Amino acid sequence: MKRLLDLDIPDRAVNLQQLIEDCATTLKYQVKTGHPHFFNQLSCGLDIISMAGEWLTATANTNMFTYEIAPVFILMENVVLSKMREIIGWQGGDSILAPGGSISNLYAFLAARHKMFPDYKEHGAAGLPGQLVMFTSDQCHYSIKSCASVCGLGTENCVMVPSDERGRMITTELERLIMQRKAKGHIPFFVNATAGTTVLGAFDNLNEIADICQKYNCWMHVDAAWGGGLLLSRRHRHPRFTGVERADSVTWNPHKLMGALLQCSTIHFKEDGLLISCNQMSAEYLFMTDKQYDISYDTGDKVIQCGRHNDIFKLWLQWRSKGTDGFERQQDRLMDLAQYQVRRIHEQSDRFHLIMEPECVNVSFWYIPKRLRGVPHDANKEKELGKICPIIKGRMMQKGSLMVGYQPDDRRPNFFRSIISSAAVTEADVDYMLDEIHRLGDDL
Amino acid sequence: MKRLLDLDIPDRAVNLQQLIEDCATTLKYQVKTGHPHFFNQLSCGLDIISMAGEWLTATANTNMFTYEIAPVFILMENVVLSKMREIIGWQGGDSILAPGGSISNLYAFLAARHKMFPDYKEHGAAGLPGQLVMFTSDQCHYSIKSCASVCGLGTENCVMVPSDERGRMITTELERLIMQRKAKGHIPFFVNATAGTTVLGAFDNLNEIADICQKYNCWMHVDAAWGGGLLLSRRHRHPRFTGVERADSVTWNPHKLMGALLQCSTIHFKEDGLLISCNQMSAEYLFMTDKQYDISYDTGDKVIQCGRHNDIFKLWLQWRSKGTDGFERQQDRLMDLAQYQVRRIHEQSDRFHLIMEPECVNVSFWYIPKRLRGVPHDANKEKELGKICPIIKGRMMQKGSLMVGYQPDDRRPNFFRSIISSAAVTEADVDYMLDEIHRLGDDL
Repeated sequence: MKRLLDLDIPDRAVNLQQLIEDCATTLKYQVKTGHPHFFNQLSCGLDIISMAGEWLTATANTNMFTYEIAPVFILMENVVLSKMREIIGWQGGDSILAPGGSISNLYAFLAARHKMFPDYKEHGAAGLPGQLVMFTSDQCHYSIKSCASVCGLGTENCVMVPSDERGRMITTELERLIMQRKAKGHIPFFVNATAGTTVLGAFDNLNEIADICQKYNCWMHVDAAWGGGLLLSRRHRHPRFTGVERADSVTWNPHKLMGALLQCSTIHFKEDGLLISCNQMSAEYLFMTDKQYDISYDTGDKVIQCGRHNDIFKLWLQWRSKGTDGFERQQDRLMDLAQYQVRRIHEQSDRFHLIMEPECVNVSFWYIPKRLRGVPHDANKEKELGKICPIIKGRMMQKGSLMVGYQPDDRRPNFFRSIISSAAVTEADVDYMLDEIHRLGDDL
Repeated sequence: MKRLLDLDIPDRAVNLQQLIEDCATTLKYQVKTGHPHFFNQLSCGLDIISMAGEWLTATANTNMFTYEIAPVFILMENVVLSKMREIIGWQGGDSILAPGGSISNLYAFLAARHKMFPDYKEHGAAGLPGQLVMFTSDQCHYSIKSCASVCGLGTENCVMVPSDERGRMITTELERLIMQRKAKGHIPFFVNATAGTTVLGAFDNLNEIADICQKYNCWMHVDAAWGGGLLLSRRHRHPRFTGVERADSVTWNPHKLMGALLQCSTIHFKEDGLLISCNQMSAEYLFMTDKQYDISYDTGDKVIQCGRHNDIFKLWLQWRSKGTDGFERQQDRLMDLAQYQVRRIHEQSDRFHLIMEPECVNVSFWYIPKRLRGVPHDANKEKELGKICPIIKGRMMQKGSLMVGYQPDDRRPNFFRSIISSAAVTEADVDYMLDEIHRLGDDL
């Protein structure tokens, strides 16, 4: 790749013609994430309206910390985020857009800590009555554990609760582990439930987790960065999100299932006022109180970022272009396509092995090459199937025909996980995915 | 504003014509941050090449966590960041782009803590030999204090070192305060030096601070989010940045003096390998070791964000379009214009009062209305001059002719702080700024 590209930063300017060639070369060698044969990440596809929104955002080139310099965009944030909280099932509350789900989860952690230990902001860990502990499933996104590292708990105080064979937190284990830590004199204060795990697309049981949080006085966070879009679907919302309104905070990334351009991540709180009291540093040069407008519209002091990219316009414009109904249809369509893929895998069960019936648009499967067809499925065969995943992936990349991700998990070696989150995907593309994997892997 | 705009998120889609009107309305009522009469923020202006870069970025719509899905952009990051470290004065090292200077500063804090207390990641504050303390000047950006809050030190363990009348940290005070905390049994470990303060544009003395850091075994961070651009200027780099190569980490925001589109912020480390060992959570689904390429090009495990917006292309393209020489000329031009403004203020000393000779493009001044001209300058007069700042600002906003920010500081009531960071500004625009303030404020 280095040989193909001239990436040098010269002392003297290159001319306009060269810049145009630079752009063309970049697009030529860059991965086509909007192509319907890109099934590789949670964010696939390219929504043209959202893209137009991002172009306007670039042109308006402003920062989101004060109403003064982003009046229209700040009002849009208020409208969209309030709508999203309504969809979650809350009246009131507060929200913010953050640079990705990991930072959204960090905001939830910080707000929880501040709510339960308001002295922490000033006095730090030294002012606490004991060791704080947080809980999450072993299938959670790694940003949850990262909070424990960043914020001074230490990763050993982020307890990984075992999950069942479908990737859902075992809630009896959650309760047992909370009691175990309490017996040590620790202070359980935060439980993360995942609504749509990264690999398997599993949904933790929110009502059971809410019961436990209530019983042990823990903050309940729902990381719906991935699954959040299904809140919009009457068909798929239940039972996946049943009980979500009992959470204290919810992360939801429109840049995933909803197809907004990268990045577009939201974090929502049931209680209003927490974000500001948690994160406020009251920089007097930016957030003066003698301004000519209602300063409650300034958002900069609610976040740890100061400057904040405008991530709202692309979502607002896209939502206008689809309507809430259109978003719902899109979610249903993606789920239908994943079910279509599952049926096709079942129909070709000599060539493909479905690992489990999916709850989301993640489909987990192995490809079975000729030499292994008919061989009974056991641990040895899984090991062989795992070994060929990187080889098939390498062939996909060499040929440039398809992208599907693979990874191991705690229970099994490498397997493919395809994602259908692009609105451009059709049944024919799903067939192509399976056929192409067969073409690439038959001889392995 | 709410009456002027239809921001509603409807159930049913609006048509394309309406979407185009939405875009036009948004641009109409949004602040024109690219206009040469916008002197309000550290980031002003609109570089057309950087904007084109951002459009392509949107079109390519990818994430920066793995080489697999962002090969061209990851290589660009390597080239540009390596060039920036070379300009700082380092061989080797490591860097990353972050969503804004505040998060860049947080990365520096985390790396410092990890370097000095590697057990912290796993064991948290409980595993430390004592209370960690950090130091920064009272003129620093508030994100430094925010690190103490977020990461468990508590804001009372972020010591604010007094600054002199020009806004520069008093380094003898730094040493005294370090010794004071050591005497209490605390552990000073991190000193932030600011290269370009937000309000006054002051530069802390880096060599003196480096000497103290060396003596007391503290990590030295330089927050050059604002002033970083001047590293490119042979005329202005010294004495402002003399000693910068002695720092352990440097924040530098190309979206400020260099005019890259929002957001574009970089954080640089002298030591390679720290970012990864500090932030790595080793998500096995994303950062597998059996990939078909050199996984040292994956960046996702170096950051606490997982997903990361592509902030490099707009900067790379802009740099190609100007060359390093062009960037240097641009920095010199901005500084010349600020000096022009200073001269014009001196020439109109009946109407304007310059607060101090600036070190950067921040110019701090009061406007003197007719009734106060010739009145001796004292605390009472300053109080009066401070009162009229919000009124003039209100009139600017009503008329829509100009934007210049004002704020108080520890030493004085409200005063104007203009910023010349837009390449579109000319001498005529500087004259317009002063004339327009006069027109708006003469009668106050």
